[in-house]
Amino acid sequence: MFFTSFNPIKNTRFDLKTYWTTLIQEINQKLDQAVPIQYPDKIYEAMRYSVLAKGAKRAPPVMCIAACELFGGNRLAAFPTACALEMVHSASLIHDDLPCMDDDPSRRGQPSNHKVYGVDMAILAGDALFPLGFHHIVSHTPSDLVPEPRLLSVIAEIARSVGSTGMAAGQFIDLEGGLNSVEFVQEKKFGEMSECSAVCGGLLAGAKDDEIQRLRRYGRAVGVLYQVVDDILDAKTTKSKVDEEEEKKGKSYVALYGVEKAMEVAEELRAKAKKELDGFEKYGESLLPLYSFVDYAADRGFSFGESSY
Amino acid sequence: MFFTSFNPIKNTRFDLKTYWTTLIQEINQKLDQAVPIQYPDKIYEAMRYSVLAKGAKRAPPVMCIAACELFGGNRLAAFPTACALEMVHSASLIHDDLPCMDDDPSRRGQPSNHKVYGVDMAILAGDALFPLGFHHIVSHTPSDLVPEPRLLSVIAEIARSVGSTGMAAGQFIDLEGGLNSVEFVQEKKFGEMSECSAVCGGLLAGAKDDEIQRLRRYGRAVGVLYQVVDDILDAKTTKSKVDEEEEKKGKSYVALYGVEKAMEVAEELRAKAKKELDGFEKYGESLLPLYSFVDYAADRGFSFGESSY
Repeated sequence: MFFTSFNPIKNTRFDLKTYWTTLIQEINQKLDQAVPIQYPDKIYEAMRYSVLAKGAKRAPPVMCIAACELFGGNRLAAFPTACALEMVHSASLIHDDLPCMDDDPSRRGQPSNHKVYGVDMAILAGDALFPLGFHHIVSHTPSDLVPEPRLLSVIAEIARSVGSTGMAAGQFIDLEGGLNSVEFVQEKKFGEMSECSAVCGGLLAGAKDDEIQRLRRYGRAVGVLYQVVDDILDAKTTKSKVDEEEEKKGKSYVALYGVEKAMEVAEELRAKAKKELDGFEKYGESLLPLYSFVDYAADRGFSFGESSY
Repeated sequence: MFFTSFNPIKNTRFDLKTYWTTLIQEINQKLDQAVPIQYPDKIYEAMRYSVLAKGAKRAPPVMCIAACELFGGNRLAAFPTACALEMVHSASLIHDDLPCMDDDPSRRGQPSNHKVYGVDMAILAGDALFPLGFHHIVSHTPSDLVPEPRLLSVIAEIARSVGSTGMAAGQFIDLEGGLNSVEFVQEKKFGEMSECSAVCGGLLAGAKDDEIQRLRRYGRAVGVLYQVVDDILDAKTTKSKVDEEEEKKGKSYVALYGVEKAMEVAEELRAKAKKELDGFEKYGESLLPLYSFVDYAADRGFSFGESSY
């Protein structure tokens, strides 16, 4: 039986919103401790401004924890990596928003980091958050729960994902443009973080190589799906100046192919992500969070309160 | 017998210049392979421009290898970390040179990265070099030579050193200024990399905790010594516009205390660094490189050809 023809959600009481918002609270608490105010204060304030931004959905950490739990991993084993993913994600967003990059004046409904702290401080806050993530993994992961070789794989995976074969390459192509660049940018800027988060969760729990490959394809599909749906929703609502500029440059699926085709792409991605989960059917109910993420990315079935969808 | 009263160099044929320049060649070759040109080409070109700059002395990698060999470590165990140190060092210099930071138009006798590739690309090149360093350590360190827990300590040490408790903090205080900031900036911007390099070498070779502490203090003293002597030499030669501005802002020991007092500080640092090596006397001739670095930092006894001292 193919998983795609079986919806495991129907006969359970699993509620994604409860699962997700409960995790958000735990993650926020741990991030608050992981990035304390200390000398020199202002650099930590700039780091905290982005990492602890209100309304953050913590999608990378939650994806990491859910993938770890799928394979029977303890979530205590995953929290440090989950927090690190949020740190490097924030660092990447801070640098992407800079005037010389995407020149985005706001992020998550508040002024961008450089608008508040200046360009120099925003660069430094990013430069400090990247290594803090790696340090946090080494210093906070319980050694009795995660053998060292797994932790090294996690570090290599995050380093690969944020670097010149991953997110930095996506940002580069986003700046340079070029033929067929939209797919590359979507994959690298938006698929990469989701892929990396799912893979790290699997690595922490000791998933097998073929399972890691499935998580990789699943995570990437969900990340790109989320962004394509974002573009579709943007096209249907009032556009900001930035959105309009992005569209003009043909930097989204919608701008390139129109809403209808983008919706087809979204459905293909939904099916692709769910198909990857077929192989995990034996894990039973622990698959529910990963399964539900796909539909959330496609349908945005509930609101997080402060966020609009 | 105190080591400071005993010069182990006198009765040996150890020649630092030969040792150092031989290592430079090996390091350059490995860095050339570690940062290949691949898609998207331009970001790798920008990374290579700084990492493979001609005339680079490779002080961090050489320090790391020498510290590893002091404790009987194989230099093959140290090369990946040595290369990673050069990558994160280059990344840090690229970002420090940016117009919104130190606004330095040249580095190592050639135009700064952002002068050639633009500010956006320079930020991305730095952002890509940091994680590449971590990835390189995990993917290239021979697992039969270095147990995983040691490698995790090395990663944590580098992450600590480049982050908000280390070099990023130094750059922040350099921008902000303030009372007594010169010492802090010198320690964090120039002592940190040297300290981290020595410590990583020791960690790779399995040095004990008290030995790591010695290496830490030794490395920091040598790094600051090198910079103080740089300032003294600058004060004695024709000044560049940047140097003059730095002096005006009181951003060097010389500007703050004058040449004579700076020379006293340099001699104190030389003695301090050598005193730390006392505890390693039992390691015999393998101590010679670390010992010689101190005098090189203080006296610049030979030239590297392309570099002026």
